Amino acid sequence: MIERIKSGIPGLDGILHGGFVKGTNILVSGGAGTGKTICCMQFLHAGAAKYDQPGIFITLEEKPREIRREAKQFGWDFEKLEQENKLIIVDAASSKAGLPTTEPYTLRRGFDISTLAQEIYKATKQIDAQRIAIDSLSGLGIRFESQTAIRNAIFKLASLLGELQTTSLMTSEITGKNGYSRYHVEEFIAQGIIVLYLNEENGELRRSLVVRKLRFSSHSLKVYPIEIGNRGIVIMPGGEL
Amino acid sequence: MIERIKSGIPGLDGILHGGFVKGTNILVSGGAGTGKTICCMQFLHAGAAKYDQPGIFITLEEKPREIRREAKQFGWDFEKLEQENKLIIVDAASSKAGLPTTEPYTLRRGFDISTLAQEIYKATKQIDAQRIAIDSLSGLGIRFESQTAIRNAIFKLASLLGELQTTSLMTSEITGKNGYSRYHVEEFIAQGIIVLYLNEENGELRRSLVVRKLRFSSHSLKVYPIEIGNRGIVIMPGGEL
Amino acid sequence: MIERIKSGIPGLDGILHGGFVKGTNILVSGGAGTGKTICCMQFLHAGAAKYDQPGIFITLEEKPREIRREAKQFGWDFEKLEQENKLIIVDAASSKAGLPTTEPYTLRRGFDISTLAQEIYKATKQIDAQRIAIDSLSGLGIRFESQTAIRNAIFKLASLLGELQTTSLMTSEITGKNGYSRYHVEEFIAQGIIVLYLNEENGELRRSLVVRKLRFSSHSLKVYPIEIGNRGIVIMPGGEL
Amino acid sequence: MIERIKSGIPGLDGILHGGFVKGTNILVSGGAGTGKTICCMQFLHAGAAKYDQPGIFITLEEKPREIRREAKQFGWDFEKLEQENKLIIVDAASSKAGLPTTEPYTLRRGFDISTLAQEIYKATKQIDAQRIAIDSLSGLGIRFESQTAIRNAIFKLASLLGELQTTSLMTSEITGKNGYSRYHVEEFIAQGIIVLYLNEENGELRRSLVVRKLRFSSHSLKVYPIEIGNRGIVIMPGGEL
Amino acid sequence: MIERIKSGIPGLDGILHGGFVKGTNILVSGGAGTGKTICCMQFLHAGAAKYDQPGIFITLEEKPREIRREAKQFGWDFEKLEQENKLIIVDAASSKAGLPTTEPYTLRRGFDISTLAQEIYKATKQIDAQRIAIDSLSGLGIRFESQTAIRNAIFKLASLLGELQTTSLMTSEITGKNGYSRYHVEEFIAQGIIVLYLNEENGELRRSLVVRKLRFSSHSLKVYPIEIGNRGIVIMPGGEL
Amino acid sequence: MIERIKSGIPGLDGILHGGFVKGTNILVSGGAGTGKTICCMQFLHAGAAKYDQPGIFITLEEKPREIRREAKQFGWDFEKLEQENKLIIVDAASSKAGLPTTEPYTLRRGFDISTLAQEIYKATKQIDAQRIAIDSLSGLGIRFESQTAIRNAIFKLASLLGELQTTSLMTSEITGKNGYSRYHVEEFIAQGIIVLYLNEENGELRRSLVVRKLRFSSHSLKVYPIEIGNRGIVIMPGGEL
Repeated sequence: MIERIKSGIPGLDGILHGGFVKGTNILVSGGAGTGKTICCMQFLHAGAAKYDQPGIFITLEEKPREIRREAKQFGWDFEKLEQENKLIIVDAASSKAGLPTTEPYTLRRGFDISTLAQEIYKATKQIDAQRIAIDSLSGLGIRFESQTAIRNAIFKLASLLGELQTTSLMTSEITGKNGYSRYHVEEFIAQGIIVLYLNEENGELRRSLVVRKLRFSSHSLKVYPIEIGNRGIVIMPGGEL
Repeated sequence: MIERIKSGIPGLDGILHGGFVKGTNILVSGGAGTGKTICCMQFLHAGAAKYDQPGIFITLEEKPREIRREAKQFGWDFEKLEQENKLIIVDAASSKAGLPTTEPYTLRRGFDISTLAQEIYKATKQIDAQRIAIDSLSGLGIRFESQTAIRNAIFKLASLLGELQTTSLMTSEITGKNGYSRYHVEEFIAQGIIVLYLNEENGELRRSLVVRKLRFSSHSLKVYPIEIGNRGIVIMPGGEL
Repeated sequence: MIERIKSGIPGLDGILHGGFVKGTNILVSGGAGTGKTICCMQFLHAGAAKYDQPGIFITLEEKPREIRREAKQFGWDFEKLEQENKLIIVDAASSKAGLPTTEPYTLRRGFDISTLAQEIYKATKQIDAQRIAIDSLSGLGIRFESQTAIRNAIFKLASLLGELQTTSLMTSEITGKNGYSRYHVEEFIAQGIIVLYLNEENGELRRSLVVRKLRFSSHSLKVYPIEIGNRGIVIMPGGEL
Repeated sequence: MIERIKSGIPGLDGILHGGFVKGTNILVSGGAGTGKTICCMQFLHAGAAKYDQPGIFITLEEKPREIRREAKQFGWDFEKLEQENKLIIVDAASSKAGLPTTEPYTLRRGFDISTLAQEIYKATKQIDAQRIAIDSLSGLGIRFESQTAIRNAIFKLASLLGELQTTSLMTSEITGKNGYSRYHVEEFIAQGIIVLYLNEENGELRRSLVVRKLRFSSHSLKVYPIEIGNRGIVIMPGGEL
Repeated sequence: MIERIKSGIPGLDGILHGGFVKGTNILVSGGAGTGKTICCMQFLHAGAAKYDQPGIFITLEEKPREIRREAKQFGWDFEKLEQENKLIIVDAASSKAGLPTTEPYTLRRGFDISTLAQEIYKATKQIDAQRIAIDSLSGLGIRFESQTAIRNAIFKLASLLGELQTTSLMTSEITGKNGYSRYHVEEFIAQGIIVLYLNEENGELRRSLVVRKLRFSSHSLKVYPIEIGNRGIVIMPGGEL
Repeated sequence: MIERIKSGIPGLDGILHGGFVKGTNILVSGGAGTGKTICCMQFLHAGAAKYDQPGIFITLEEKPREIRREAKQFGWDFEKLEQENKLIIVDAASSKAGLPTTEPYTLRRGFDISTLAQEIYKATKQIDAQRIAIDSLSGLGIRFESQTAIRNAIFKLASLLGELQTTSLMTSEITGKNGYSRYHVEEFIAQGIIVLYLNEENGELRRSLVVRKLRFSSHSLKVYPIEIGNRGIVIMPGGEL
């Protein structure tokens, strides 16, 4: 019997025929402004606040204080969850930028894929995390010169997630129309792929979502309109575009 | 007289005008989430469980335990087939990731195309395998810097399959719309090409399949809708799109 | 409660559901001639002249005297604001071109990303600036050979803006149709994205604007026609295309 | 008066206004599965079996035994023709793959463009060959690192064919939609170009053929539907699409 | 009050809402055969012959004698203007080609961006030139290996024009459909952009023109049909396409 | 008064408003099989046989004997013209291929752009040639590694043609849809551009021609259907598509 993890996004578990499959890693792919970070925060908040499944947020772009600030906009109190040992935010953004940080979870000795892996491992064990979000894989590129180095880094992170047996979201920001990832390796290592769209239609940008792949489970193949309201992402009822 | 190998995919043998041609290697090409891995598992399971044709699954992306787990979802008991010496799973994924593994068939001395070839050869001889699946050729790229190196690796693998006289599936994950492969060499060395699609149509992703090439045999040129249900891939009856 | 910064562009604050979010950095992306520089000048002028929020204009393309000249066309007296310590123009264009300049705020020791960062820091502190505009990120490429170097420079500038807690506009000139930026890293580091269009329609170029991303806030997803008149950019009333 | 060489493909000679021009080299260009190899075999079989024009098949992809096997599918007995000194198959595939071979005509000292040229020259003289097929030029790329090296190799082969005064087909496998060749040099050195298509139309792949260039002769410019049946390629009667 | 410079092209000054802005540099962008060189000649001829504004023509492609010859076709007597010190043609084409020249204004010590800048400076001062045309920026690429070198050269030329306070046209020949320039830096440094088109419509090439950018001034956004007759470029009356 | 050179292609002189302009160089651009070589031969034959204007054919692809053979197909006796000192064929193809040749005009000391220029110069002076055809510029690429080297070579050839004051055709084979040349420099150095098309329309390839640029002259902008019959290229009467 397949064990499921609730996504925390109203309507998504039905599309996934029951939720994410426990222990898998899911690629959340989309252009700028499609809601990838919100998706991660919502997933972790639901786990920590509703399902007693602590989570780790590894942020490679935004500083932790900005993650907390944005979460608050949706009514998700990350600071409280952190104090209750239900959430850890790993600040990989500061060391990537070469800036100091007062965050407790960070990469003290500079940005390095092994250090990052160790930090993720340590944090996961500390609060017995069941959920992980890495936002975003695309950001790794700034620190690596060659495509091969980036791909190896992504491959190592995915292997670590596989070892930890956590259920994980990894985001990937795409810029063109070719594939579902920036380095064209993210989709290989993902066991599920969710694509978020923000496309113009009749003079307006419209949001939608489709599940393209889900190992170990069937899933809906429909493209669903979504909205980002003041409680986060919601799949629209009636669901079909 | 051409000898045929049953594909194990309901409806596909008719499209192939009798099944795969014995001793050929077939490229299974498609984007993320199109069902390439399932196609391989179904092909090997049918051989091992129904036709007394043992098989080898070389996995370059997923760990063997995940392959077994996913197979189980479709009612295919890979562990039992492995115990009966009807199936061997070669774990090339762990050594590619530089991770330890307890799998019996793996690349102990690190990832290397010659070692991989030897391991395939050894496993094939051990259970007198008639079928081989390599999932996926695209994954080779993570370990090779230059395009030429990757192409040589793919060429060597295909040559080995030619020597072994097994009937083989090789998967290739494509990211754009140019051709049927990632390195644009896979289709040269394949004697057959099956393309799997997962394209949006009226707000829904639809699956389909077409046979584009089949040496030594005629074949249907129609594009067939397919479904992935709880028993694997099925060509839809009535067959034409 | 989210604090808002008035954009100074008639109609835009409504689209932003109240104005820019204080302390964020916004990418203003568009092709040549779409009005990116005007957008920056209008934003800074409004702050300095109406809302008592001093600002810094970092110009990487135009010389300061040209910025002042163009501002005057729209009725914005930059020289007066500079004399009142409400505006500083940092001349990064001259040192980038290797030319002497008599501007007070410039990069005396040659163009260099750390020197630029220091100059921005110094100017910001001097007049307690609340607003910053960098025009344009795309211009950095002339001074850097490798993509990685450019991306690191952009990343560092964005980190500095984050530290300063100013509300910032950064422009990016795009040449093709792939993404919203020139180096495909600008959109990662931006917390908001405004896209300006100048596209042909029935034998005439038409201007429009859309907000694609806005951290910490909801926003309209409509594409709005805009005009550049003798008082700068105006969102057209009736607003929908 | 132009001397003509019968193509052996029913219907094609009419399109060519009498057949291939004696002594020219023709590029047969198309994607995977379009029938390029069959076209070569049919051309050589017709020469050897019907017109007393011995031929050389230089195979860079498939092993000779596979060529013989596929030919047999169409009723073409290559082994018999080889015994009668009407056909020689040069095995360039094995040495390219670094594998041993028991074939009499091969590149014993490893793959090298000069060795290949010598082998072609030797074989041609031995049976006074009138026809040559090289399948495929695209396969050369696996052995050469730089584009310039590949192009020089192709140029040298074409020059050799020019010297030998044989009528030759060279295949080129294209992967995208840009031009008629892989290295964009094949069409320069070809005196004729035949393009084979396998494109989807109404849920079915359809085959067609067009002659795009033919030095020393006029030719039809129509696109003709073709079929590959159990006697090889046939231009469909009624001919126009 | 903005001072204006008459373009000399009938109908264009109206589109520019009064002419070019004095002291700005304008990019004239278009494919081969769109009339960029004619536009430059017409602009300089009008200045020298009608408005008492001497001009400099820097030719990087055509030899001066060809410029004079083509001008004569339109009734513009460049030799007379040169004798009257109202026009100087700087021959940068010969030194770029490594050929000797008898022209008085040339780059004696070989092609080099600093030498070119000095020559432009010297000529400008000598006849107190008010107008400059550089035809074309695209031609610089032949002499520079790296994109960065070309871009620096273009940037330096534009800076010089800025210092000289002349009103300048710079041409850029585009080959594809991406952007308005060849090196994707020309549009950054231009204060105005005029695009010339020569596109097929109903079996005929049609000429048109649009002003895409004009610092310090409003301008028409319409696409205007143009003709090149025996007096040069003319905007067609009735003006809208 | 502009002196004109008759093209020899029925109907083309009218399109050119009187013929080619004496002393200019014209780029003949088109894909494979569009008739570029025939255009050159027809131009030279008309000059030598009808207008007492001797010509030079520089062949970079085909061997001279093949040029002569193809010319004969159209009733043009090149050998006779060569004997009468009205035509010289310079064999640049053999030395480019590294093959020996018995042709009198060739590059004895190996392929080299200076040697080629000298050979062209010598041949031109020897028979007082008025017309030159270079077929093709695209072929230069096989001998040069870097784009800059190729472009310099093309630039030097064009400069030489400018010095010789001959009327010249240069062909360029294009493979994609971007621009009118292979190295994107040919159109800069050409004073005229003729584009030849061979595009599919309703299941048939159709030929057409358009003049895109013609310095020193007006010209028709229409796209004309053409045919290649047994007397060469003919513009179809009634002329408009």
